[in-house]
Amino acid sequence: MRTAPSPVIVLVDPQLGENIGMVARAMANMGLSELRLVRPRDGWPSEKAEAAASGALDIINGAVVFATLAEAIADTHFVYATSARERAQAKIVVGPRAAARALRGRIEGGQRAAIVFGPERAGLSSDDVALADEVLTLPVNPAFASLNLAQAVLLVGYEWFTSQAEGERLPFATELGAGPATREALAGLVDHLERELDEAGFFGTAEKKIVMSRNLRNILHRRALTEHDVRTLRGVINMLSRKRRKDEAEGEA
Amino acid sequence: MRTAPSPVIVLVDPQLGENIGMVARAMANMGLSELRLVRPRDGWPSEKAEAAASGALDIINGAVVFATLAEAIADTHFVYATSARERAQAKIVVGPRAAARALRGRIEGGQRAAIVFGPERAGLSSDDVALADEVLTLPVNPAFASLNLAQAVLLVGYEWFTSQAEGERLPFATELGAGPATREALAGLVDHLERELDEAGFFGTAEKKIVMSRNLRNILHRRALTEHDVRTLRGVINMLSRKRRKDEAEGEA
Repeated sequence: MRTAPSPVIVLVDPQLGENIGMVARAMANMGLSELRLVRPRDGWPSEKAEAAASGALDIINGAVVFATLAEAIADTHFVYATSARERAQAKIVVGPRAAARALRGRIEGGQRAAIVFGPERAGLSSDDVALADEVLTLPVNPAFASLNLAQAVLLVGYEWFTSQAEGERLPFATELGAGPATREALAGLVDHLERELDEAGFFGTAEKKIVMSRNLRNILHRRALTEHDVRTLRGVINMLSRKRRKDEAEGEA
Repeated sequence: MRTAPSPVIVLVDPQLGENIGMVARAMANMGLSELRLVRPRDGWPSEKAEAAASGALDIINGAVVFATLAEAIADTHFVYATSARERAQAKIVVGPRAAARALRGRIEGGQRAAIVFGPERAGLSSDDVALADEVLTLPVNPAFASLNLAQAVLLVGYEWFTSQAEGERLPFATELGAGPATREALAGLVDHLERELDEAGFFGTAEKKIVMSRNLRNILHRRALTEHDVRTLRGVINMLSRKRRKDEAEGEA
């Protein structure tokens, strides 16, 4: 089904099957082939999606459904969250042309990447944006910025498709010294840290915990950590928690 | 209604009002404001177009209907015909990025330009393509090239919108010595030439006339003629026809 490696398109909470079909069509137009769906509202498979796909049935039939965004991006190394509005999440914001160039470099280097789109009206939640490396936003008329889902995918795909022809490749790429960590490894790190912090009473109120853990996720997903970085940080957490447990045991004694 | 000068979007024989509405929405997304319709199949105004425009009603309400493409582009100086397939018309073919850069230069220089889109399935007729200066085609996956009308307008508009930010402007532009001829002046030249050639028996059969006059139109629309060029050529035609009439009169005598 796939001809050349390309970024995965992830739709979070898509509402209408028709829109999913139109996304598949736009993907086919631009040489994208892999579609993942997180909680499609009207279920999956969808006849409406098939009808709207105008023949892009390989993509519809190959689409995989996930229960959470974290699972949908678990095997990827780099994730863009698309957003039409500013997010106070201290993430790098790029346009589709810069994103396409960066993606081409990563994917040719063997990495897997995802571009995540939120539901039709609301867009991605802050918690979902927190799982991404960078925010991708589309240059449109600020006085009339509403794009439908398929149009947003079309524009991102267009830049991906046309970036093939550019020849602006650098002769060598950033060498990290270790392969980049997958999303799954990163999620394991974040879970580990949260668990330990929770036990240590770090979060205080439940409300504070929501905000703090989003902040932590933002920090840890902001820049691609290598597998080695993840192991190092988990070692740090283990050491801190062992120390705390020891202190508490001594205090109790 | 208009904020800054931008290319006119012309839809020839559009079928569904809904598609016209979606084109208006895509135009609004990309800062385009002027829409012209040639023979909209289901009439105009259209409630379906209004409903599909998602609020881009300034564009819908400002749309003007014409009986022919020639009339719709009469006041413009430069015309792109969009086409998804190759045409044996010896016209320059450009992509949307190059077209957007060229258009920005022309429009900032005070010219008026149009981008013409054909009906939903068939695309522009060869006769309509013959009226354009250049052919504009979109880079899409050749294995899945079918774009709907609004998506084609969105991609062309996207390149127009983003070309604003490019700063790749040259410090000076081509100086033609006279303002470029409008489409109306060019059409007058072609009509004049055809009339005289017809009288001189140049065309032979009616079938041959169709092909030959399309060829003539292709030649004369291929490169922007200046007002001065048009006057010169009309002078040439007049002289040739006066000579022919004189010869004939002498032959009869």
